[in-house]
Amino acid sequence: MGMLSEGLTQVLIPAAALVGIAFALLQWYLVSKVKVSGDSSNGYSGKLIEEEEDGIDSLEVSIKCAEIQNAISVGATSFLFTQYKYLSVFMGVFAAIIFFFLGSVKGFSTKSEPCTYSQGKLCKPALANAAFSTLAFLLGALTSVLSGFLGMKIATYANARTTLEARKGVGKAFITAFRSGAVMGFLLAANGLLVLYISIILFKIYYGDDWEGLYESITGYGLGGSSMALFGRVGGGIYTKAADVGADLVGKVERNIPEDDPRNPAVIADNVGDNVGDIAGMGSDLFGSYAEASCAALFVASISSIGINHDYTAMSYPLIISSVGIVVCLITTLFATDLSEIRDVSQIEPSLKRQLVVSTILMTVGIAMVSFFALPSEFTLFNFGTEKAVKNWHLFFCVTIGLWAGLVIGYTTEYYTSNAYSPVQDVADSCRTGAATNVIFGLALGYKSVIVPIFAIAIAIYVSFSLAAMYGIAVAALGMLSTIATGLAIDAYGPISDNAGGIAEMAGMSHKIRERTDALDAAGNTTAAIGKGFAIGSAALVSLALFGAFISRAGINTVDVLTPKVFIGLIVGAMLPYWFSAMTMKSVGSAALKMVEEVRRQFNTIPGLMEGRAKPDYANCVKISTDASLREMIPPGALVMLTPLITGTLFGVETLAGVLAGSLVSGVQVAISASNTGGAWDNAKKYIEAGASEHAKSLGPKGSDAHKAAVIGDTIGDPLKDTSGPSLNILIKLMAVESLVFAPFFAAHGGLLFKFL
Amino acid sequence: MGMLSEGLTQVLIPAAALVGIAFALLQWYLVSKVKVSGDSSNGYSGKLIEEEEDGIDSLEVSIKCAEIQNAISVGATSFLFTQYKYLSVFMGVFAAIIFFFLGSVKGFSTKSEPCTYSQGKLCKPALANAAFSTLAFLLGALTSVLSGFLGMKIATYANARTTLEARKGVGKAFITAFRSGAVMGFLLAANGLLVLYISIILFKIYYGDDWEGLYESITGYGLGGSSMALFGRVGGGIYTKAADVGADLVGKVERNIPEDDPRNPAVIADNVGDNVGDIAGMGSDLFGSYAEASCAALFVASISSIGINHDYTAMSYPLIISSVGIVVCLITTLFATDLSEIRDVSQIEPSLKRQLVVSTILMTVGIAMVSFFALPSEFTLFNFGTEKAVKNWHLFFCVTIGLWAGLVIGYTTEYYTSNAYSPVQDVADSCRTGAATNVIFGLALGYKSVIVPIFAIAIAIYVSFSLAAMYGIAVAALGMLSTIATGLAIDAYGPISDNAGGIAEMAGMSHKIRERTDALDAAGNTTAAIGKGFAIGSAALVSLALFGAFISRAGINTVDVLTPKVFIGLIVGAMLPYWFSAMTMKSVGSAALKMVEEVRRQFNTIPGLMEGRAKPDYANCVKISTDASLREMIPPGALVMLTPLITGTLFGVETLAGVLAGSLVSGVQVAISASNTGGAWDNAKKYIEAGASEHAKSLGPKGSDAHKAAVIGDTIGDPLKDTSGPSLNILIKLMAVESLVFAPFFAAHGGLLFKFL
Repeated sequence: MGMLSEGLTQVLIPAAALVGIAFALLQWYLVSKVKVSGDSSNGYSGKLIEEEEDGIDSLEVSIKCAEIQNAISVGATSFLFTQYKYLSVFMGVFAAIIFFFLGSVKGFSTKSEPCTYSQGKLCKPALANAAFSTLAFLLGALTSVLSGFLGMKIATYANARTTLEARKGVGKAFITAFRSGAVMGFLLAANGLLVLYISIILFKIYYGDDWEGLYESITGYGLGGSSMALFGRVGGGIYTKAADVGADLVGKVERNIPEDDPRNPAVIADNVGDNVGDIAGMGSDLFGSYAEASCAALFVASISSIGINHDYTAMSYPLIISSVGIVVCLITTLFATDLSEIRDVSQIEPSLKRQLVVSTILMTVGIAMVSFFALPSEFTLFNFGTEKAVKNWHLFFCVTIGLWAGLVIGYTTEYYTSNAYSPVQDVADSCRTGAATNVIFGLALGYKSVIVPIFAIAIAIYVSFSLAAMYGIAVAALGMLSTIATGLAIDAYGPISDNAGGIAEMAGMSHKIRERTDALDAAGNTTAAIGKGFAIGSAALVSLALFGAFISRAGINTVDVLTPKVFIGLIVGAMLPYWFSAMTMKSVGSAALKMVEEVRRQFNTIPGLMEGRAKPDYANCVKISTDASLREMIPPGALVMLTPLITGTLFGVETLAGVLAGSLVSGVQVAISASNTGGAWDNAKKYIEAGASEHAKSLGPKGSDAHKAAVIGDTIGDPLKDTSGPSLNILIKLMAVESLVFAPFFAAHGGLLFKFL
Repeated sequence: MGMLSEGLTQVLIPAAALVGIAFALLQWYLVSKVKVSGDSSNGYSGKLIEEEEDGIDSLEVSIKCAEIQNAISVGATSFLFTQYKYLSVFMGVFAAIIFFFLGSVKGFSTKSEPCTYSQGKLCKPALANAAFSTLAFLLGALTSVLSGFLGMKIATYANARTTLEARKGVGKAFITAFRSGAVMGFLLAANGLLVLYISIILFKIYYGDDWEGLYESITGYGLGGSSMALFGRVGGGIYTKAADVGADLVGKVERNIPEDDPRNPAVIADNVGDNVGDIAGMGSDLFGSYAEASCAALFVASISSIGINHDYTAMSYPLIISSVGIVVCLITTLFATDLSEIRDVSQIEPSLKRQLVVSTILMTVGIAMVSFFALPSEFTLFNFGTEKAVKNWHLFFCVTIGLWAGLVIGYTTEYYTSNAYSPVQDVADSCRTGAATNVIFGLALGYKSVIVPIFAIAIAIYVSFSLAAMYGIAVAALGMLSTIATGLAIDAYGPISDNAGGIAEMAGMSHKIRERTDALDAAGNTTAAIGKGFAIGSAALVSLALFGAFISRAGINTVDVLTPKVFIGLIVGAMLPYWFSAMTMKSVGSAALKMVEEVRRQFNTIPGLMEGRAKPDYANCVKISTDASLREMIPPGALVMLTPLITGTLFGVETLAGVLAGSLVSGVQVAISASNTGGAWDNAKKYIEAGASEHAKSLGPKGSDAHKAAVIGDTIGDPLKDTSGPSLNILIKLMAVESLVFAPFFAAHGGLLFKFL
């Protein structure tokens, strides 16, 4: 037994979660001190900003900010509610499927069964597992929805405040945007931990000593979280990029008006999209990863000596890691908000990057302490039919290597997507000869950016797999996600700054303010790419851990590539990311075409629009994005949700194992290259626009041929980096967790086609 | 024993090869009857074309054709010789590596060893196998070089003849181009078979009854063929696309002059490129596939009951299949050249597609006969440590399913790349909103086009693997390649027609002639895509067969994804196609940038060039392409050649097995999507240019905004479809065959790193 007592563990976890929530609320309170007058009918309380630096911004401008913020918030809320209406139908149907599939494993019998791993004991009936898995699924789905929704609320609350603070200086604006990101990060991390902790306690009332059944059912939590994340990412991604591509193609390319110009009819839809896609989608996605990694680790632990001996503290190791993570991130946040101050634009990116390094270093210490205090010095793990002896310091290495692999992936992503380094500058340079070379160089950059992350993931996998089998992989994933609060904070910071810039432009604020928000935004682009890198890296580890848990639960001991069943699964699985990307990219393309036609129509038919004398019809563009995203999220969603069900039922667990392995190893590459290619194009464009070096100046200014070529690249990158790429994380995780939940059914009744032949 | 006697087998195979060669020479003779006066110094024999239809082409034009043909031929020959000079160094070094690695397996001992599979017998020493493998490697390399060179010679002999025949009508031009393609197809198929057959006979003089050693050494033939193909494809691909992209970017986009305009300084390099890349590269590639499939099948058969019982006829089954293939293709060719006549442009594509169907149907009958007569009704195969009983009709199904899977892949490719169907028309339509949507739709199309081929390959693998283990896969690959002569004929037809069009433009022939050659070329684009589809599909099967042979030879019985060694191989292997593509695309991009600068320089500094009063400096552009391709082919070549050596030596055979499986399942997807995306963009552009429908007219004409967007897509597609995509076939095959050849070394001395840890 470890040194940490069971009682202390039971206090520590919820305490950390509550501290996280309290900290988030404190940050929210600090952000809320920036006043925005949104209610123009009730009048407004005089001068809103006391220490106004920039004299040219009138009161009228602040009111405009409030109006725009309101429009974005209303748009985002209404979209999310419409989306949730559809999703509630899906949740109901899928909950029923889970219950019936799992219930049918033992013919809906209510009799207790002999346990699989705790020999000689009786475990709860399969029907109970079906019911509790369904319940866990619903809990996970609701928590995911809540995570996305809260993130969106905070972001739309913070964007105009960031704009207004930008009048006081770049430092103030940065703090506002960053604090708001932190609200989201901490709420999400703490909330995810708390719901999971409470669920386990409540489930235990029924399950008692049957930990096998308890942690089997808990896996439904991961499935619920991830399936909502899929629709959030895909739907939100299509929404935001249809609006973005449509707005850019007519506004920037044809009409030559700036980004976020209020004359552009798609501009509100574009800003709403940032909040529902990049914020709510990302929130759900990372919550899903966190939930799945925890579930995979808990499940694997439950069938090891820890679970069989009922060592509560050691069993809670994954949750304690996350608890310490919240505290570490809290300290890290203070470095950015209180211990240092941004005085200059050039300090933004280093400050955000410092967050990553500080949290990683502190967390390493935290992991060492947790591994030493919470774990017995030696225990055995289940390793596909054999047993494996493990020491507590082995697990320290597993978690730590996951954590540091995340940092390596983050830094590599930054190198390939920030315009401070040569790769993006080369891409910008290739715009000299037109859009075609820009695209060729950008694609090549994305392909190349895969190399280091894959080696980092491979090393993390090798070390943690060798030291502690599948449990090692699961805790390595948790290690990468342990600093999720900080990761999400710097990630959410991006779209908030992006929106802030949009609001500044739409409210007609001065060039100086726009320059400040642009600087915030450029750093945000890079951190968004880093966030995506983390999301993909952790997804790879998580889905491998889930894959291992699935294999254990399905009761197979080898997945041999040299059998036809497995090999066809492998090659078809490797194809799925392409199929899925084809769907999502075509969806964005078609929706963007419609948007372009609508925007063109408005410019052509509304008199005085180009001159700023008439208002565009924003609502019509919002409607196009909404309709497209709700309609188009169904086919890719169905592909991901149905593949494991169909494969498992018709072809059995071996082929399904092949499909999971194939989609994992292929999807990671597609996702990383798509995200980085898109990020690089975006920043190559920004590099030319900013004109900060001699080289950049020779390519610019805005409107030059090279800049036009760069805009084309940026537009192509939009669906790659914000729709297809990030959705692929969820594809690989979700198929794995779904297979894990349905494993007993597939093991009992699957492979119908081969049985028939 | 089967019904076919050993003596008859020994006659049948060389006879078929000789018939193929004779037929090729006959076709060459028929093509040569079209006279081109190339020697302007010796004077020319009056009127070259007797039945001249098109009055406006003067004698001067024909002389110009001859001059251009000569320039292209000289350029291509000189490039290939330079390339071969470099390759001979590589061949020498690599031959030494093979000899030393394989020789060291038993410490260069000259003592006979007990056989592995024929128990109780003595086999030749490892040193002999090393020597003969090296010899086979050199033979394969030389045959590959010869295949590429002969193809290039024929193509540059035929291009101007096709142009001249186009004056008499589209039917005559088609026949000339197609016959020339057939010369290449038959020479290559027959030559590959004959050299392999003779090598086996000669090797047998030493090996006698030791078939294990004999067929182990013969695998070097496949390695030699494929390694030359790699450099041919990559070097040729960079050459042709640097010239093509460079010529288009300045000529078509900036200067608004037509494709192949003689004022464009890069035009000769572009046409030379078609011959060294699309012709010589493709020839080497398919020869490599053929050689590897045969070697894999022979090796697997040699360790089965067929080999152990020394059943010569059954052992020769793979070669007999290829022999029958030559005869079947011969009959098929007559359908295009003698039994029907092309009278109208619209008949070209159907006629070429008919070739595929006819050859597939005839070949199915041929396979049935060979399986019935050459094989014993039942025998046993080696299946990774176990034995598997197989019947002769099982093998009929294996070969046939490979053959028909090829047809399905061919037809799917046609559907996605021909502008007669909606996918390409949708891409063309998306040009309405600019280059960005064109690229998004094109990428989505490529991703989507992967689905059906992968299912076809998966079904072929499942059936043949289940029926006859790895031997089944190898003969399925041979089935797909059995109609290689026809496949190559319709494939080589494409670049020949492309060149013919270029010559017509450069020689200043009338618009009417150019329209005819354009129609030939459009059909050629589709058939080129079909050819690439075949090449990729067969590469997938071949490399799986080689993978199986490698596993058998390395003496491992499972490749379990659930071991860390294998899994890291899998994920890193899946990354290699991206790394490789990044290199090749960047190479094309950089070389194209240089080409653009040179072409711009010439337009800016040579007075009277745009007005056609001065001649451009073609040689400088040829030099840029040559230098770039020779320099840039080394890093990707090194990546492919070194990966198996390093992985096997440091990490051992399990990790290497993972790498092979990963690169196979991931590379196939990248290759198919890259080829089809590129083909679709090319034909979307042609669709707008041709303006054959109301829809197409609404997008055009040449020079419209939509057309400009289409040209950008076409340019991006160039390196995808002609450099990266097709080279990936070779990546996956070559790594597998190299692993197979070096398997004894890795099994004996590999995995140093893990041994050390």
